[in-house]
Amino acid sequence: MRDDYFSTRSSVRQYSDREVPRELLIDIIEKAMRAPTCGNMQLYSIVVTTEGERKARLNELHFNQPAAATSPVILTICADFNRFTRWCEISGADPGYDNFHSFITATTDAVIMAQQIVTVAEMNGLGTCYLGTVNYNAAEISKLLELPDLVVPVASLSIGYPAKRDELCERLPVEAVVHFDTYRKDSDREITDLFKVKDDFEANRNFVKENGKRNLAELFTDIRYPRKLNEEVSESFSALIREKGFLGKEEKKD
Amino acid sequence: MRDDYFSTRSSVRQYSDREVPRELLIDIIEKAMRAPTCGNMQLYSIVVTTEGERKARLNELHFNQPAAATSPVILTICADFNRFTRWCEISGADPGYDNFHSFITATTDAVIMAQQIVTVAEMNGLGTCYLGTVNYNAAEISKLLELPDLVVPVASLSIGYPAKRDELCERLPVEAVVHFDTYRKDSDREITDLFKVKDDFEANRNFVKENGKRNLAELFTDIRYPRKLNEEVSESFSALIREKGFLGKEEKKD
Repeated sequence: MRDDYFSTRSSVRQYSDREVPRELLIDIIEKAMRAPTCGNMQLYSIVVTTEGERKARLNELHFNQPAAATSPVILTICADFNRFTRWCEISGADPGYDNFHSFITATTDAVIMAQQIVTVAEMNGLGTCYLGTVNYNAAEISKLLELPDLVVPVASLSIGYPAKRDELCERLPVEAVVHFDTYRKDSDREITDLFKVKDDFEANRNFVKENGKRNLAELFTDIRYPRKLNEEVSESFSALIREKGFLGKEEKKD
Repeated sequence: MRDDYFSTRSSVRQYSDREVPRELLIDIIEKAMRAPTCGNMQLYSIVVTTEGERKARLNELHFNQPAAATSPVILTICADFNRFTRWCEISGADPGYDNFHSFITATTDAVIMAQQIVTVAEMNGLGTCYLGTVNYNAAEISKLLELPDLVVPVASLSIGYPAKRDELCERLPVEAVVHFDTYRKDSDREITDLFKVKDDFEANRNFVKENGKRNLAELFTDIRYPRKLNEEVSESFSALIREKGFLGKEEKKD
C-alpha cells in the first residue's frame, strides 16, 4: 500500500496545459464506480466539461478561480434520482424518490463517488480540486448543463496535470475530530488548544494580517464564509432542490 | 498504483472476531484527515463505538443487520459545525453557520472523510460497510452518542477484519452515468438498455422471484425503499436538522 500517498496528498489549483485524454477520464470514472453506493442504486451522474464556450461559462460560474480556469476538465457530480425514477416508471413500478431523504441519499452517493474519483485520479498522477463554489451558483450551473428534474449538482471537481501542487497545509490534531463512546464536551481552553495549530500556522497569520483582521476566526466569519453569504446560498440552494422536485409534489406547487 | 484494488473492492457484511487495535483505527483516521475539506475547516467528527451496552444499542438502531452486529467497530461520521462555531465564538468572531447551506457544506466534508476512511482502511486489509440506516434513526443515534447542537450523523461505517467479502455485484455501464457537455436525454429504450445488466443479474432475478415481485424496480419501490418510508425519514431527518440548529434561529422557535 502506498501509505505515503494518503499522508502527503494535496489539492491542485494550478494546472499545466497537458490534455487529459478522454479514455483516461472514462477509465478513472469506471474504476471509481466500484465505490460503495446505497442499495447499488448509483444515484449520481457526472457531467464532463472540457472546452469552448461552455467551459468558459462554467469557469465564470466558479468565479474564474485558478483551480477552475486553468483546468482542462471540470466534472460536475450530481445527486441523480432521475435515471432510477425513470427506470422504475418504465418498469411499471411506483417510485417515491421526490423527497428530502432521497435528496440526502443521492447526495451521499454523489459525494462518495466524487471522492473515489479524486483518489483514483490522484493515484494516477493527476491533480484535483473541489470547487466549493458549486453550491453558490447551483441553479445557473444546472441550466448550463441542462440538468433535468431530480438532478442537482453537489460536487465540482477540476482535474488535470499539476503545474504546482498546494503546499501541505495544517490540519487539526486527530484528537480534535475523534470521540470515543460519546461526543466529548471540550472546555473553551481545550478548543483553543486544539485550534492552536491553525492560529499559529504562518500562512494563516500572514493572511490575517493582510486582511486587517484580529485573528483567523474573524477571517472566516467576516471574509471567507460570512453569515450573509451562507444565508443567501441556503435560500437559493433550497429553492433549486424544490424546483428539481426533491421536496415533494405538494410543496412544489407553492 | 494498485489499480486492482479499485476495480475489485467490495463491502463486508460479515466480520471475524479479530479486534481492531485502537492505534490502528487512529492511524487510519489520521491518514484520512488529509482528504480535501472545505476551506480547511474540517467540518466533521467521528464517534467510535466498540463495546458494551452502547454498541449493542447502536447495533439495534441499525436494525441488527449483520454488517453492524458482527462488526467490532462502528464509526458514526457527523457533519459538525459545533467545534468551528465554538472556536469562532471563543475568538470573539461572529459565526454564521446555523443554516442549511452550512449543513450541506459540513455533510459534504463528512462524506468525503468517510470515503477516505473506507479507502485507507480497505487498503490496509480491513473491511468496511456503510450503514444506510444512519438516516432512519438519526435522532436516536444522536441521543445515544450525546451529539450537541450543529452536529448531525450523516454516515455510519462498520469496520473490521472480513470473515467474508461480498461478491462483486453488477454496476451500470459507465455510459449510464457520464454525460458530455450537457445531461443526455435518454429515450425509454435507452434507459431500459442501460439497466439491462441489473435486470438480468442472477442474484437480482432470484431476489425478485423470492419476493413475488414482477421485476427488480418493483422490489426497490415496494420493499427496499418504498415511498412511505422515504417520506417518514424525510420528516424525521428534517426535524433533527432543525433541532440541531441548522435551519436558523427563527425557524428553531416554531
